[in-house]
Amino acid sequence: MIVVMKSGSPEAEIARISEELSDRGLTPEKIIGKHKVVIGLVGETASLDPLQIQETSPWIEQVLRVEQPFKRASLEFRHGQASDVVVDTPSGAVHFGQNHPVVVVAGPCSVENETMIVETARRVKAAGAQFLRGGAYKPRTSPYAFQGHGESALELLAAARTETRLGIITEVMDAAELDKIASVADVVQVGARNMQNFSLLKKVGAQPKPVLLKRGMSATIEEWLMAAEYIMAAGNPNVILCERGIRTFDRQYARNTLDLSVIPVLRSLTHLPIMIDPSHGTGKAEYVPSMALAAIAAGTDSLMIEVHPNPAKALSDGPQSLTPDRFDHLMSELAVIGKAVNRWQQPSVLAY
Amino acid sequence: MIVVMKSGSPEAEIARISEELSDRGLTPEKIIGKHKVVIGLVGETASLDPLQIQETSPWIEQVLRVEQPFKRASLEFRHGQASDVVVDTPSGAVHFGQNHPVVVVAGPCSVENETMIVETARRVKAAGAQFLRGGAYKPRTSPYAFQGHGESALELLAAARTETRLGIITEVMDAAELDKIASVADVVQVGARNMQNFSLLKKVGAQPKPVLLKRGMSATIEEWLMAAEYIMAAGNPNVILCERGIRTFDRQYARNTLDLSVIPVLRSLTHLPIMIDPSHGTGKAEYVPSMALAAIAAGTDSLMIEVHPNPAKALSDGPQSLTPDRFDHLMSELAVIGKAVNRWQQPSVLAY
Amino acid sequence: MIVVMKSGSPEAEIARISEELSDRGLTPEKIIGKHKVVIGLVGETASLDPLQIQETSPWIEQVLRVEQPFKRASLEFRHGQASDVVVDTPSGAVHFGQNHPVVVVAGPCSVENETMIVETARRVKAAGAQFLRGGAYKPRTSPYAFQGHGESALELLAAARTETRLGIITEVMDAAELDKIASVADVVQVGARNMQNFSLLKKVGAQPKPVLLKRGMSATIEEWLMAAEYIMAAGNPNVILCERGIRTFDRQYARNTLDLSVIPVLRSLTHLPIMIDPSHGTGKAEYVPSMALAAIAAGTDSLMIEVHPNPAKALSDGPQSLTPDRFDHLMSELAVIGKAVNRWQQPSVLAY
Amino acid sequence: MIVVMKSGSPEAEIARISEELSDRGLTPEKIIGKHKVVIGLVGETASLDPLQIQETSPWIEQVLRVEQPFKRASLEFRHGQASDVVVDTPSGAVHFGQNHPVVVVAGPCSVENETMIVETARRVKAAGAQFLRGGAYKPRTSPYAFQGHGESALELLAAARTETRLGIITEVMDAAELDKIASVADVVQVGARNMQNFSLLKKVGAQPKPVLLKRGMSATIEEWLMAAEYIMAAGNPNVILCERGIRTFDRQYARNTLDLSVIPVLRSLTHLPIMIDPSHGTGKAEYVPSMALAAIAAGTDSLMIEVHPNPAKALSDGPQSLTPDRFDHLMSELAVIGKAVNRWQQPSVLAY
Repeated sequence: MIVVMKSGSPEAEIARISEELSDRGLTPEKIIGKHKVVIGLVGETASLDPLQIQETSPWIEQVLRVEQPFKRASLEFRHGQASDVVVDTPSGAVHFGQNHPVVVVAGPCSVENETMIVETARRVKAAGAQFLRGGAYKPRTSPYAFQGHGESALELLAAARTETRLGIITEVMDAAELDKIASVADVVQVGARNMQNFSLLKKVGAQPKPVLLKRGMSATIEEWLMAAEYIMAAGNPNVILCERGIRTFDRQYARNTLDLSVIPVLRSLTHLPIMIDPSHGTGKAEYVPSMALAAIAAGTDSLMIEVHPNPAKALSDGPQSLTPDRFDHLMSELAVIGKAVNRWQQPSVLAY
Repeated sequence: MIVVMKSGSPEAEIARISEELSDRGLTPEKIIGKHKVVIGLVGETASLDPLQIQETSPWIEQVLRVEQPFKRASLEFRHGQASDVVVDTPSGAVHFGQNHPVVVVAGPCSVENETMIVETARRVKAAGAQFLRGGAYKPRTSPYAFQGHGESALELLAAARTETRLGIITEVMDAAELDKIASVADVVQVGARNMQNFSLLKKVGAQPKPVLLKRGMSATIEEWLMAAEYIMAAGNPNVILCERGIRTFDRQYARNTLDLSVIPVLRSLTHLPIMIDPSHGTGKAEYVPSMALAAIAAGTDSLMIEVHPNPAKALSDGPQSLTPDRFDHLMSELAVIGKAVNRWQQPSVLAY
Repeated sequence: MIVVMKSGSPEAEIARISEELSDRGLTPEKIIGKHKVVIGLVGETASLDPLQIQETSPWIEQVLRVEQPFKRASLEFRHGQASDVVVDTPSGAVHFGQNHPVVVVAGPCSVENETMIVETARRVKAAGAQFLRGGAYKPRTSPYAFQGHGESALELLAAARTETRLGIITEVMDAAELDKIASVADVVQVGARNMQNFSLLKKVGAQPKPVLLKRGMSATIEEWLMAAEYIMAAGNPNVILCERGIRTFDRQYARNTLDLSVIPVLRSLTHLPIMIDPSHGTGKAEYVPSMALAAIAAGTDSLMIEVHPNPAKALSDGPQSLTPDRFDHLMSELAVIGKAVNRWQQPSVLAY
Repeated sequence: MIVVMKSGSPEAEIARISEELSDRGLTPEKIIGKHKVVIGLVGETASLDPLQIQETSPWIEQVLRVEQPFKRASLEFRHGQASDVVVDTPSGAVHFGQNHPVVVVAGPCSVENETMIVETARRVKAAGAQFLRGGAYKPRTSPYAFQGHGESALELLAAARTETRLGIITEVMDAAELDKIASVADVVQVGARNMQNFSLLKKVGAQPKPVLLKRGMSATIEEWLMAAEYIMAAGNPNVILCERGIRTFDRQYARNTLDLSVIPVLRSLTHLPIMIDPSHGTGKAEYVPSMALAAIAAGTDSLMIEVHPNPAKALSDGPQSLTPDRFDHLMSELAVIGKAVNRWQQPSVLAY
């Protein structure tokens, strides 16, 4: 349920109403929009009478039910207003959201050694990326495959962060490692295989770093938004939704089917920012550029692109990684579309 | 198997080689590329020795096997060169292909009456479409649903064609109606449900009008290209591949999952032109624009968009149809992306 | 809508009511149940008032709407009573239905030559099969693959029929061949790829032979029943539904995923008899026996099993075909389960 | 890689070979078959020469590579011999495996209160079940749905165990709760959503209780066996594989598509015992009996059936739960099929 306040409602009145709603056992959340303030309510609202709440203050414009099963994640909860996820990075705050330029995240599948991660970081930063991705803990289908370098890889990410001032995004697979990861990462990633690991969702929801929530391989859109809701219900409103390819009947030429059509669907359902990962989404480097271009044209807020200095020798996901040179070229192609849709940051002078 | 001729090979030599290959029971097909001529061969090539063929002429540069099960449809068969499908329309020849501007096809799901079809045709022509789509025979899940006006609808399409000089694309469901349809249509459409109706494929392959082949709802890419191969093997090389949404595990918010990732995959496998139908692909008008934009950014050669003067009263597929006004606006949005990727026709002065 | 007559309603009254309903533009269909007669109604029933119809005769017990989009195919249309599809074969009438023993159909994927088809027919008959399957016209993914021997294969099927007195089931792919096929076949099969070839459905619905309707590879249950409805609406009530494996995300070990769970679902929705085809359903001979056993335990009315005298040399579908010896053994295994669930015919003395 | 020892190989020789293989950095595992001993080897075997190993002892019959990516879970690793998973319960050891009667697990989705769980336990025990299922921690799509009573529910399960002497199976969602759960449960369940929660798999693999591994909703068979491999590689060989319905394109009538065809496929790939859960698999109580019957006919080693004293009032999964009376009846139906295939335990006198 949401309470839409009239334009110009006094702060004190909003506070008073929120308190009154708290007293009824609800959890009010103040959302400051461009023109109006909305009070989002979660809790046992089924038995509440909207009219009765409306009568508690002449400053209340409307009281509306959120019909979707996802409450905090729904577009209705913010009365149609997109949310910004603001991430503090060494280079300053980066905004993910519809009203901001497309944010590019790039880097290798996994952190292999210091040279490769720092070198890759420099290259993607120079090309215009704002975040470095890189796995320290890797979810692998086989227990005998490379599982990531773990803690030592986190240190290398920290070094790359200091060196390049890029933000860091890396995956958490085990709640026991969350603190260590959050001490290095600017955004904590929950992988596709853990999208419905509800214990983990509750824990990343109870810590303050923004969360990148990858869509499960066969997760419906509703399940995905309910997973975001788990994080938000635990106290963390800063969730970015990342589409990374779904499982369909055909895997002969592509690893997954990148579902770009999720972009307009999510826009109609949620205020949360959207990221597209065409590297996992297709599984093949040659398919990445056209999908990255399409994602921007379709309205994504962010892109995640795998880049590796030597894809043929990558310890994981080599076939889907671009070389730094190919990535440079891609960024110039993306800029053309990005500018055409007014979602591209003018390059600032880069010095490091 | 293909025989790549050296640059400057004399016509007579190419003819001589082709004849010799015919004598061996093969079907040679001459493909004129930018720089070279390629002779495509279909038939019992498994037992042939490429080296032996190579020795039959000093003008032969290379003899290569086509590894894919689809032969004529494969990119290898044309030695990497995209094909043009050229359609004669009342306004002149329209080219579908990678080296041409994006072709826009628009119109209603089904032809309802003369006023609506002519009016829609005028509007989509004015907005820049080059083809009118409209169903005379409609494949419907229920035998009790509107099945299209049939023959009389064909006459209305013919009237709209005369009036607006747009090309016509309409679906054939029954081989018995093929002649009638082909007498009106500039492109004959095979629908998704008939993608593996092999009898029908053979028959549209044996007539001269270009064929629009929609992808089956759960057709793999290989099956789709094999369906194109049926048409081509029957003698008709003019096939356009149209993605219209696939069936996945989630149908809650969208009718189908539009598979834009098929664009780079097809580019790597086939020389045939690609069309994207975001209207059926998503099933919801509000999702159409972003998917149409994305399709162009991803490199589609053509778009098919449903437009209806009054979607709320459409006899079929109303929810996914744009109004003519919304379509006008979409065309201006598409032009921005189309120009950014150098695939947009400069508008000529339209007069009718 | 259905009109349930009271027990003991006079024939004349039923005829009178039917006539009255015809006069209102409806198509009444008399269904004689164990205890009661039901009049099924198809047509513009939306505006009819059930109470008003009820008042037309004191012999009417109840007037009920059929809520499902499939009307004639729905269980409601027969007021919960299973239908029998009775097929005339040279050995007499064979009943497909819930209240009859499981009917076994066996034979090769395609008719290859006289020796093999007659030999296979003898063997499957001796083992207890009541129908011979065998393709004359084969739907193949590739235009270059064996397409069936066509008309000459039909003659061989006719010979095998005469020889063994088995019923014949064979597929129609093209309406133009329907008459020829129906002159040999006791049951006409519509294949999975043509399940939504609505033109063909209408034509098999307009001829008198029973129809075996295979489920499309990704057809929903509702679409499948609507396809049956096309046949029934065209006048042919004798439809058998055959599950033959659906397409899922995993095709590594099996060709399709045989959906046995469709059995209880169909039972709750339709009165039509059910057949299971574990050969296409799994694509691998070694998986066939356990699935055939399971199908009987789950309640199927019929089984279709591929049998080939020499699977390794089959022109199509060898890997999923049983040898006649393996089929003999399977029949003895099936008899154990079939008897346990009271759905197995006591073997009669076979002489030929 | 496996080392097959000749019949009658001396213990000392087997020990000596194992030690030698350990010295090469491999992990040998002794598997005692009916006739022979096999030494399974995991580790860096790619560079090993089978012939060289063979020469280390005249008692070695054969050295074979395991071609599958899943090693310990593969049928080859045990040289074709099924494994038994033996579970200690208050009533004695229960064997899950191909050479044992079908084991029935029954109980409610979640533990709601003492009366319901003890009452249900008594009833399912009386009907012939050997294990009680019941969730203390429940994975729910919504954060606002009932999440299970947690620790207090574990106590109630312990009480039901003491009372009825049934074994207990319950799910672990969070490694932090594993010890508590394992102190009550005889079998620890990993749910479908956590099938690729590799951290959790490693932890249940490092504790001694047998593990029930549910298949992920869209997990391929290979991924599922690789998940089992994670548990086995961590030291726990006692894994039971449970099919519980997969996600397909159709969810209109059933919650999932129960994939019974997985039974023969698993039999050809792995030695691990199989369980089928038709309750989650179909999501509807009326579909459960026929699928349970079919599962036994297809060769399952075990069944998991949801039973609730009052399904209409269940806190979760009511629609798929049988009443105790319906379960009694089902057990008598299962006995018929179970006896027909020689997989049914003669009822012993039950006293409690």
